[in-house]
Amino acid sequence: MLFRMLKFPKNHRAVLQLCNFVHNGSFTKSISTTACYKIQEEVKKLLALKSQLVTEDAVPQKFTLKTPKGTRDYNPQQMAIRNDVLQKIIAVFKKHGAECIDTPVFELKDVLTGKYGEDSKLIYDLKDQGGEILSLRYDLTVPLARYLAMSKITMLKRYHIAKVYRRDNPAMTRGRYREFYQCDFDIAGQYDLMVPDAECLKVVTEILNFLDIGKYVLKVNHRRLLDGMFEACGVPADKFRTTCSSVDKLDKSPWEEVRTEMINEKGVMPEAADRIGKYVIMNGGVELAEKLLKDEKLSNSKAAIEGLEGIILLLKYCELFGIKDKILFDLSLARGLDYYTGVIYEAVLTEPIKIGNEEQTVGSIAGGGRYDNLVGMFDSKNKQVPCVGVSIGVERIFSVLEAKLAAGEMRVRTNEVDVYVASAQKNFLEERMKICTELWDAGIKTEHSYKKNPKMLTQLQHCEDNCIPLAVVLGESELKRGMVKIRNIVSRQEEEVPREKLVDEVNARLALLNTKGINGV
Amino acid sequence: MLFRMLKFPKNHRAVLQLCNFVHNGSFTKSISTTACYKIQEEVKKLLALKSQLVTEDAVPQKFTLKTPKGTRDYNPQQMAIRNDVLQKIIAVFKKHGAECIDTPVFELKDVLTGKYGEDSKLIYDLKDQGGEILSLRYDLTVPLARYLAMSKITMLKRYHIAKVYRRDNPAMTRGRYREFYQCDFDIAGQYDLMVPDAECLKVVTEILNFLDIGKYVLKVNHRRLLDGMFEACGVPADKFRTTCSSVDKLDKSPWEEVRTEMINEKGVMPEAADRIGKYVIMNGGVELAEKLLKDEKLSNSKAAIEGLEGIILLLKYCELFGIKDKILFDLSLARGLDYYTGVIYEAVLTEPIKIGNEEQTVGSIAGGGRYDNLVGMFDSKNKQVPCVGVSIGVERIFSVLEAKLAAGEMRVRTNEVDVYVASAQKNFLEERMKICTELWDAGIKTEHSYKKNPKMLTQLQHCEDNCIPLAVVLGESELKRGMVKIRNIVSRQEEEVPREKLVDEVNARLALLNTKGINGV
Repeated sequence: MLFRMLKFPKNHRAVLQLCNFVHNGSFTKSISTTACYKIQEEVKKLLALKSQLVTEDAVPQKFTLKTPKGTRDYNPQQMAIRNDVLQKIIAVFKKHGAECIDTPVFELKDVLTGKYGEDSKLIYDLKDQGGEILSLRYDLTVPLARYLAMSKITMLKRYHIAKVYRRDNPAMTRGRYREFYQCDFDIAGQYDLMVPDAECLKVVTEILNFLDIGKYVLKVNHRRLLDGMFEACGVPADKFRTTCSSVDKLDKSPWEEVRTEMINEKGVMPEAADRIGKYVIMNGGVELAEKLLKDEKLSNSKAAIEGLEGIILLLKYCELFGIKDKILFDLSLARGLDYYTGVIYEAVLTEPIKIGNEEQTVGSIAGGGRYDNLVGMFDSKNKQVPCVGVSIGVERIFSVLEAKLAAGEMRVRTNEVDVYVASAQKNFLEERMKICTELWDAGIKTEHSYKKNPKMLTQLQHCEDNCIPLAVVLGESELKRGMVKIRNIVSRQEEEVPREKLVDEVNARLALLNTKGINGV
Repeated sequence: MLFRMLKFPKNHRAVLQLCNFVHNGSFTKSISTTACYKIQEEVKKLLALKSQLVTEDAVPQKFTLKTPKGTRDYNPQQMAIRNDVLQKIIAVFKKHGAECIDTPVFELKDVLTGKYGEDSKLIYDLKDQGGEILSLRYDLTVPLARYLAMSKITMLKRYHIAKVYRRDNPAMTRGRYREFYQCDFDIAGQYDLMVPDAECLKVVTEILNFLDIGKYVLKVNHRRLLDGMFEACGVPADKFRTTCSSVDKLDKSPWEEVRTEMINEKGVMPEAADRIGKYVIMNGGVELAEKLLKDEKLSNSKAAIEGLEGIILLLKYCELFGIKDKILFDLSLARGLDYYTGVIYEAVLTEPIKIGNEEQTVGSIAGGGRYDNLVGMFDSKNKQVPCVGVSIGVERIFSVLEAKLAAGEMRVRTNEVDVYVASAQKNFLEERMKICTELWDAGIKTEHSYKKNPKMLTQLQHCEDNCIPLAVVLGESELKRGMVKIRNIVSRQEEEVPREKLVDEVNARLALLNTKGINGV
């Protein structure tokens, strides 16, 4: 039936594709040497044909000028926002002693295979151009696990900020993209129960408080409790993960839809689903966890007890960390990824953000959990390195701040220039260049016009548009007297100072100006 | 002949691949609807077969644990070096008023096509998984041009620091990789001749002086002069670019080899090659440019005169910028990329770097030039935005510093923790957590052990290993009296302070410590 199918192609594109397919070598690996020789002969002929076709194709074509679907450029204003947010987050990570690492943007495909469950279909693959089979990273967690296993590291507290890639169909208006920044903090190592886990929650609260973008709650749950709950409700063990990914949809879909998916797609018995439905509406504090420890069904499950005891300990540590009022134990929290093994958590903004006259619902803004078995999957002796971590949803934060900027509720400065060297008359380019050199060499952030004879008004307008506080203004009569003018752009006051003392005079004025107010995001 | 070839595959991998190939849709686009229907039927059967095979394949496999060829992880020490270098470079970019932008890691393949000349074969393509045809960015210059054209921006001074991708076979020991950071500064806009160009050179010298990694020279040349030189030597106009890419190899290969390549591979006449050979050995300052303006052959070429006059103006501006002694006008400098149209330049370390008992030859460490036609290639009306820019070879700089670190000639701190909260006795985990909370909430960089009962020696060792200057030591007897001890890790002196004044006491001591010396890269 294979050959019947292949009788159809007549035109050159099909030949070309088939030719590429054979030429890249994957086809020939699986056949005998003699056969291979014959194929090589045919391939040569096809390649000759292909080279003609390629020449035809190489004629310049019109194409749509755009970034790839689901991606975007960051302009200077967006970058100013982004860099400010990331600096604040990094400051918190460093406050907790985290080191920084980076990994390649792509991994061997095998490294990613089997780590993401139902989401694996969203992985970007690279074209096989000969050599290794590669895919773009889907998150920063699996690369971390690969790094730990490969480098035989058993203890690490690290942050990693980088772009990850998912072939999703995201709602870009809500700050979701196919290429997006992840901003991760993880603690790897064999430590005592819930101690690093609680610190991850502390880190999230410090970041969200620092960024001050709205009220939030930090939902927590435990994968062992979910497993125990599924067990107690009568779900067979091999359906735990897939049932879990149905529960994960509860933040977007009503219970009825999730129930239907469990029964029709996941093969969960209706009675089991109904039992699950009674648990996943529960949320509260330590008193709920203690009540559930006595629950008739759950108290028979070792996993459920383990999960509940973990939650109780976690909540106690959160109280010591002064963040108890931010935490909500929530049985509907499931998290999509397969690799979690212990505590899981998610920070959610509790109120829509008001921007101008519109309200923007943001939802989940950070999430993470414990994954104790992931590193072992990369170790030939299956040696485990327990890990717990959190990922900050920076893209959604950027999205909120960009909307505030667009609504005029916020101002950003995209450059940090302190001094603009302007000339009031023609033919001062060389003098401007000399003065810029003095200022640059003294470490002062300085600009001038790249035109020989710019208009005075244009130069001053540039200063105002870019919030540059000072201008050095060159005029013929002053220069003859060995003087230059320093102009305060906001007050428009001008003062003459000796040319040779310019650097000191500028530095003195900059020290007086409250430049922080001007730079502020 | 197609079908003969396809009779060979017998085993399941080939079926699977062919099935994928048909399934991704590219095959079916080129045939009729009825044919398509029949194929779909067959595809269904094949997919059923495939699903069985995929299940077989899904059994966990052993694979080599590595990063993809030509890539590497950055560990915390490498990241500390990298972040320090990049911060210094960014400081210079900002001193010159640059704004920051970012673009996606991949572009529509059509955006990159036809921009890189002979190097285009090194572009990484993404697999066609349905949708757009994408490639990883090869540099940051073409994405900038696409961004300017797409956003209709005619003026921009921006920096962009990001990873780029080339399927090269790089010498990784010399700091060359398939994935590497580029660090670009570019000025776009219609300005006066050589004014922004000279500032790019100023920026390079400021960065190389600031990083202080060795003596360097900044070679400059002009593409119009090269064109004029080729013209004057008798190279036909359609061979200018390809001859240029031969000249570009002069930094690595002797003239004899380059000459042979020109004649045998590029089809340049031997006499023309010999004439070129007499020019490309020349280098010097403004006096050389002035001498060449009177050269019998060159003075007949409009392009050569334009190039030489440009070089003379550039050298004059460089003198005003105080960097004349760093610049060398060098006729052998060609630069590999197709898109340059005006001045080109390259910074080269002039001495091998001594590391331990070894000498490391570094070579080119920054490069760039003017490209006035690139933005127009993306504009439907071919509207030009002239650009000039420079790229700092940060990977080579990282490589030198990493070698210095390995040789013990440099020390880096990978975290910034100021205070470690330790306990001298058992059962102080909760007390430690409370004290950490106070310190964190006061903005103090603090760590403690994630173990319930860590050994005192282990805790103090951690402080020494990580250059943490202070430890807060909890002991039962002190706590009963409302006191805690603060220990200076270097001097080993301990002082008792009231528990309730801890934050103030810690802050006072941190202010006294010269933390800069400890953090220093």
